[in-house]
Amino acid sequence: MQCHPSVKHWLSRLAKVTCVVGLGLAFAGMGHADDKPSGKRTIAEQFIHDMKEGKISEGGADDHVVQELIIKRSIPITYKYINTLMNTPNAFGPGVACTVCHNSNDPTQSYRGLDLSTCKGLIEGSTESPKHVLFTPGTDPKRDILIRRLRNNRMPLGQGFENSTFTPNHMLVKQWITDGAKNDDNFKKKVLPLFKKANAFGPNTPACTACHMSNQEPPSFHELNLNTYAGIMLGADSVAKGVDKATKVIVPGDPAASFVWQHLAEDRMPPGIAPSEARDHPNTTILSAWIKQGAKCD
Amino acid sequence: MQCHPSVKHWLSRLAKVTCVVGLGLAFAGMGHADDKPSGKRTIAEQFIHDMKEGKISEGGADDHVVQELIIKRSIPITYKYINTLMNTPNAFGPGVACTVCHNSNDPTQSYRGLDLSTCKGLIEGSTESPKHVLFTPGTDPKRDILIRRLRNNRMPLGQGFENSTFTPNHMLVKQWITDGAKNDDNFKKKVLPLFKKANAFGPNTPACTACHMSNQEPPSFHELNLNTYAGIMLGADSVAKGVDKATKVIVPGDPAASFVWQHLAEDRMPPGIAPSEARDHPNTTILSAWIKQGAKCD
Amino acid sequence: MQCHPSVKHWLSRLAKVTCVVGLGLAFAGMGHADDKPSGKRTIAEQFIHDMKEGKISEGGADDHVVQELIIKRSIPITYKYINTLMNTPNAFGPGVACTVCHNSNDPTQSYRGLDLSTCKGLIEGSTESPKHVLFTPGTDPKRDILIRRLRNNRMPLGQGFENSTFTPNHMLVKQWITDGAKNDDNFKKKVLPLFKKANAFGPNTPACTACHMSNQEPPSFHELNLNTYAGIMLGADSVAKGVDKATKVIVPGDPAASFVWQHLAEDRMPPGIAPSEARDHPNTTILSAWIKQGAKCD
Repeated sequence: MQCHPSVKHWLSRLAKVTCVVGLGLAFAGMGHADDKPSGKRTIAEQFIHDMKEGKISEGGADDHVVQELIIKRSIPITYKYINTLMNTPNAFGPGVACTVCHNSNDPTQSYRGLDLSTCKGLIEGSTESPKHVLFTPGTDPKRDILIRRLRNNRMPLGQGFENSTFTPNHMLVKQWITDGAKNDDNFKKKVLPLFKKANAFGPNTPACTACHMSNQEPPSFHELNLNTYAGIMLGADSVAKGVDKATKVIVPGDPAASFVWQHLAEDRMPPGIAPSEARDHPNTTILSAWIKQGAKCD
Repeated sequence: MQCHPSVKHWLSRLAKVTCVVGLGLAFAGMGHADDKPSGKRTIAEQFIHDMKEGKISEGGADDHVVQELIIKRSIPITYKYINTLMNTPNAFGPGVACTVCHNSNDPTQSYRGLDLSTCKGLIEGSTESPKHVLFTPGTDPKRDILIRRLRNNRMPLGQGFENSTFTPNHMLVKQWITDGAKNDDNFKKKVLPLFKKANAFGPNTPACTACHMSNQEPPSFHELNLNTYAGIMLGADSVAKGVDKATKVIVPGDPAASFVWQHLAEDRMPPGIAPSEARDHPNTTILSAWIKQGAKCD
Repeated sequence: MQCHPSVKHWLSRLAKVTCVVGLGLAFAGMGHADDKPSGKRTIAEQFIHDMKEGKISEGGADDHVVQELIIKRSIPITYKYINTLMNTPNAFGPGVACTVCHNSNDPTQSYRGLDLSTCKGLIEGSTESPKHVLFTPGTDPKRDILIRRLRNNRMPLGQGFENSTFTPNHMLVKQWITDGAKNDDNFKKKVLPLFKKANAFGPNTPACTACHMSNQEPPSFHELNLNTYAGIMLGADSVAKGVDKATKVIVPGDPAASFVWQHLAEDRMPPGIAPSEARDHPNTTILSAWIKQGAKCD
């Protein structure tokens, strides 16, 4: 089959915006599902019902279809699939499997004493001091470390893991947060300038303010302004969510809980994944769903 | 190693046409295989024999190598590999594993009561009414629903699953086929114009006739002309196969068996896959081979 | 979120050079690891120590991060992961799983009687005559057949597996090596000209000397000069490694051990993979590490 130019145009347009999802469920004979009360419908019937009623939202990326088909319909995610994801290469984007490096609670064999090869290990989290869990079963893990590591690119973009997160500049930011994130002379003279300077947190990287320079998106990602103390403390998405509900990016006294510090210090997994890879991988969404559903092991 | 421009050129040319396959079997000492009668040869000997005789055809896409190495040589496909494909993300193109949504015969937990996590479930098919099998063991499944869902993009291209397949326009086409696909006033005034109109079966989609407008390919995909009753009833590939052997796209009285309706109503799996992804994925070819070989469970 | 042009620029630059790796290990509270003697540190502590000391090298492709995080730190690779790689599609680049074609030691069912589905089979190697092992446990397998097949593209680039490796031209090269690789009339008149001629070893392929024409890289890949007897016998990388340590590409009398013959006769796995795919796939690196660590089955 040869290629027809106008179809080529459609295909390239579609590929570019990755906006095409597909999952028709139009089986003949399922039309009378609407007669049943909603609690009695199968998931296929409920999906068709919602499609007819226009309750299914317009799509975008591939993750959208997972939202509509799996998450909204509370398809129970099995631990067996989560286990496959942990053991299989390329599960969350191109890369090695999670269990290559995290497969036992012996920290001399496995990074952070983290065992992702069993359900117990996933729930127990990092056993090397400082111990910490990766998520709380039954809650949204979006801000918890397991999902952060899969979604968040280390900042500034272009950072390789080989670039230290213990540079004097990193330590200046961390200490400033630890000390209460005050608008004092130390901040004005030593910390704030770091956000405005290229290569401050790693070689060949842009200044933070190259992408976060005002409360307007575009051009400023997440409506975040790192040019001023007021902007930093206001946080992200203040226009979209309203000033009162803006997402705080600094928690004074607690760098580990501060998004600014998390983004400076945590690299994205799997190791080697490019920041241009989609952050909302369908399998990351499914992993989140399993956690929200209670992280059941059977 | 730095890049040499002329090699770069070769690589990009190769990548573009995805025409490079590789699988040398030139082991020293296997030269005397030709002495054996063909039934006594190992698969490696038979492959080398055919290569020497020029019986191996010139290649194209990656799927070609699977054809030559696996399908033509009747390598027995194990259920174990089929089971891996059903449970593994990205097995048939980028996406979640089949078993996320189809993992039990309880239709309140699993779409269509379809259990792809066991061999029995694969063979049993959809248990939710209307029940149906996905393929017939021992036969070519190309037109059966399991392989259709993996290969066929929903039409018109650009359709998202969230676009209803129960619109009045869809129902007009379906009813017309059910009523015998006659060349009557209803067809001429209500059905035929739908094929010629953009956005008739979903927002922001081209008219069917943008790609299927004559019996000549190119420019018309599959030598299919949806502009006239005669063209629709003649079907696809009438030049390549001859008018008598053209592929019928309408089965009067039976929309479920009519390719026109299948393409309007069925979305491609895995959910979210782009239509620009290769339709003949090597693993789809292997799944088909397992079915043709009898869909054995051990 | 809309796209900011300067960030788009960064992303595309990063994607292009695939130079972004990420794996922050900056956990709060792990700072005092430096107090411990090096033998007492956990792998996370040792990694952070080395990062602070600048002992971690600047990165390039994704494989680099695997080197730094896994190989240099001697993370023990489990057979369980190796088994997953053998059974999973796309494990070493886009393609079917190794075990589709190599899953038993019966050569009428499995190419070369090679069983990659068990640890015993991996270690036993090809059982069809001529039998041979794939690697030697405890040694670097870079030049052994298992890793060669995953890394080396068949030459000249553009060769499909369907092109015979038993052509008269192939046989001329092989016989010349078998006969001692002498600089005789046969070599000068029949063998040497083959390296300089396009399409000598397959249709639509460049001459060997299109890429290997001098001891200077660039433009000559691997500083290899196939234009003269002296260049061929000198071998590869003679400038980088020194003339005495150049990599020999011909072993007189032994075509199977000669890189020139290996590259002419062996195709890259998995079948169908394009030569533009990265040769140092992270999982190939991990497979090599498992072999170097002793190829343990438990």
